[in-house]
Amino acid sequence: MDAAATQTVLRLFPSGVYALTVRHEGEEHGITATWVTQTSFAPPMVAAAVENTSKAIGMIRDAHHFALNLLQQGQRELAGKLGRPSPGAPQKLKGIKTKPAPVSGAPVLTDALGWVDCRVVATLPSGDHTLVLGEVIAAGVEHDGAQPLTLREAGLEYAG
Amino acid sequence: MDAAATQTVLRLFPSGVYALTVRHEGEEHGITATWVTQTSFAPPMVAAAVENTSKAIGMIRDAHHFALNLLQQGQRELAGKLGRPSPGAPQKLKGIKTKPAPVSGAPVLTDALGWVDCRVVATLPSGDHTLVLGEVIAAGVEHDGAQPLTLREAGLEYAG
Repeated sequence: MDAAATQTVLRLFPSGVYALTVRHEGEEHGITATWVTQTSFAPPMVAAAVENTSKAIGMIRDAHHFALNLLQQGQRELAGKLGRPSPGAPQKLKGIKTKPAPVSGAPVLTDALGWVDCRVVATLPSGDHTLVLGEVIAAGVEHDGAQPLTLREAGLEYAG
Repeated sequence: MDAAATQTVLRLFPSGVYALTVRHEGEEHGITATWVTQTSFAPPMVAAAVENTSKAIGMIRDAHHFALNLLQQGQRELAGKLGRPSPGAPQKLKGIKTKPAPVSGAPVLTDALGWVDCRVVATLPSGDHTLVLGEVIAAGVEHDGAQPLTLREAGLEYAG
């Protein structure tokens, strides 16, 4: 097992930058997510890998719902803000413009490019993360024609 | 459920372009995959969504292994070739330079940017696809310094 090669290749996997948001019992929370992919056309489904030690994973399990907000170019600072560990940064969504997703009530970012609101279909242990599989139950385009932020353009690193 | 918004947002999810390859009982096979993400740091793990109706998903289940080859810029034609449905395109790897991955023996592409060889840890039904979760057991960088091919740069569409 060549750890250096593994890290090199995995760090080259292209990805977008997302705000994963969740609401449970009146509490709202958001994290930066980059390990995200679509996983089905019919029905439309997506998967996101969330750290086992995060506050978010418990809230997603409890709420049975989450939203993925695709950030747009220029939102690197927002990705950094939402990427801070929760213990040192409570109420990370404070000061960020949101509205409740129509079905789940998860706070979706009106400054994001767009979002998908999801119902949790399954969770799967995956090493130090948990893979959350969600069926898209609502979606919105907030800034039509904008370009998505990529991990590479953001100058962020979360891989390897 | 706004189908048009769902399609618009999902089509903007950035992704790379990969050749997913597998070897079972002497037979080698490859498909183009774009719904791919890392899912764990320790151990390093990845997930790929593979069509339920594909020949590949059965071979991956039987072989308990697969490889993900990250294509590099300029390999759009190769992605198109491997993306053709298997019934009309048997022996899709014919004419493509490969070598056996050290652990699984899956054919890895020496013209790709790099590859990870994976042991199947779990599979999860996901609508019209199956999510295959793999632990990285070997990796190789074939073209150091090259840039990965993205779905967008390839002009391909597989989302929505």
